Amino acid sequence: MQAILTVGSVAFDSIKTPSGEVARVVGGAATYFSVAAAFFADVRMVAVVGDDFDDGRMQVFGGRSIDLAGLQRVPGETFRWKGEYSVDLNSRETIYTHLNVFDQFRPVLPDAYRQTPFVFLANIHPALQLEVLRQVDAPRFVAADTMNFWIEGALDDLRAVLGRVDALVINDEEARQLSGEANLVKAARSIRAMGPKLLVIKRGESGVLMTRGQGFFAAPAMPLESVADPTGAGDTFAGGFMGHLAATGDFSDAGMRRAIIFGSVMASFNVEAFSLDRLRDLDYKEVEVRFREFKRLTHFEGLSS
Amino acid sequence: MQAILTVGSVAFDSIKTPSGEVARVVGGAATYFSVAAAFFADVRMVAVVGDDFDDGRMQVFGGRSIDLAGLQRVPGETFRWKGEYSVDLNSRETIYTHLNVFDQFRPVLPDAYRQTPFVFLANIHPALQLEVLRQVDAPRFVAADTMNFWIEGALDDLRAVLGRVDALVINDEEARQLSGEANLVKAARSIRAMGPKLLVIKRGESGVLMTRGQGFFAAPAMPLESVADPTGAGDTFAGGFMGHLAATGDFSDAGMRRAIIFGSVMASFNVEAFSLDRLRDLDYKEVEVRFREFKRLTHFEGLSS
Repeated sequence: MQAILTVGSVAFDSIKTPSGEVARVVGGAATYFSVAAAFFADVRMVAVVGDDFDDGRMQVFGGRSIDLAGLQRVPGETFRWKGEYSVDLNSRETIYTHLNVFDQFRPVLPDAYRQTPFVFLANIHPALQLEVLRQVDAPRFVAADTMNFWIEGALDDLRAVLGRVDALVINDEEARQLSGEANLVKAARSIRAMGPKLLVIKRGESGVLMTRGQGFFAAPAMPLESVADPTGAGDTFAGGFMGHLAATGDFSDAGMRRAIIFGSVMASFNVEAFSLDRLRDLDYKEVEVRFREFKRLTHFEGLSS
Repeated sequence: MQAILTVGSVAFDSIKTPSGEVARVVGGAATYFSVAAAFFADVRMVAVVGDDFDDGRMQVFGGRSIDLAGLQRVPGETFRWKGEYSVDLNSRETIYTHLNVFDQFRPVLPDAYRQTPFVFLANIHPALQLEVLRQVDAPRFVAADTMNFWIEGALDDLRAVLGRVDALVINDEEARQLSGEANLVKAARSIRAMGPKLLVIKRGESGVLMTRGQGFFAAPAMPLESVADPTGAGDTFAGGFMGHLAATGDFSDAGMRRAIIFGSVMASFNVEAFSLDRLRDLDYKEVEVRFREFKRLTHFEGLSS
């Protein structure tokens, strides 16, 4: 098993969905990613919180293989986000984003992190993603996420990131915006020409599309009777995906496909409850059971002839 | 191989998509369904056209196993629809719908059609769907489509149809509207309680979700570099699905899943060109090749342990 370094936000989220409403719960891309990835591999986190992120809040990382030496705690308030989802959960409106201590965040890697073979750059300013890449020595596999805000406002930095990562993990809207192509096959080709050999497009309740080399792999989302809160689904997916790759070192087509399914499994659990409540008490046996359910969900027998 | 009876529209479509624009091309639900299903089984069509639907237009049905004894040709103009698609092809606006000869259409089955074992009631007024059901003798398998217009305006008739069909094949928006449930798992349960034991939910570029008994089967749409015209994709899907069921008589879980994939294959070809242009020159060998491509698109290896 090899370690994964991640950099991204740790946050307080306030969330309203048709299932309910919560205020100031733990969230953030690095949080979701780390908790999910730690089911599979050792995780090293680079992030920042304010002094309002007390020891009780830190419990979310406790008892897991998550190294917090890179988590800075500084005076001030933790990053806060408030969002409200549509009735069908397919869109959301951001009510506010308060960067707070994240505004002055500069990622500094502890020396022990510099040799980490797997790196996941969660959605932060691409200039900060580049700062992290400057501090790691020859990682084996680097993946990044980004968002519309950086595509519009920091494209040069983002282009530099794309030139240095093995994989990009973004949603379908971002893929269309980044490439300027409405068609996802054309968008994928265009984005891969910018650098990343592997592209994973997250499509919410429609699942995930992966492409590397020739051809695509499509994984649906697990149909769930109760989706409480989609927040963090994409980062949880990335955690399961990178976690499985790091745990196995299997970059074959079969290994990649399995990693996509493990990512989908973790995301499917995460949306069942608010914040990280479902991941908190999740057992790895449940992960394997749902992996097998994905097989039943998607597989069919071939032609007899 | 057993025969399939279908009732629905034969139309002249005018279509604008980002790929181009065509006027007065052949379309209609019964047309797409029949041409697709005829790759697998004998099709018997019940529909109406005006005297403007000349012999040249009829060529679309020629040289195929499509029985046109139930196709009425009456004085007046054929049903016309004009639509315009969004840039990402995921939504469309209807510019006009002229029922024309369809307005007075009453389905009358030739005697030879009454024993047809498979029936597909394409999207027409549910009262007409019921008229067809009254004229067939103990069919083995009946599937129906419908649309928002009938859910809103003819719910009693639609409820009567649902009580008499084995399967409903509708899109996700219709499933949500019919059930009043935003969640598709709950929507599926609610709709199946209305009658159909089998529910197939079409999700456009996200593929198809099927449920019968316990559990779901999810098939993605084939990622295509060039999607010229999504018109008729749902009916073409239904044609491949019903066609395979009729050809094999295989209602096992494995048979149903294969039928879903054959439907997806036919739909994936259909959207590659305007109107029925791609189906016109499609070879069955291409169908089998793409069936295998669907397997490569979706399959993954299980856990080693």
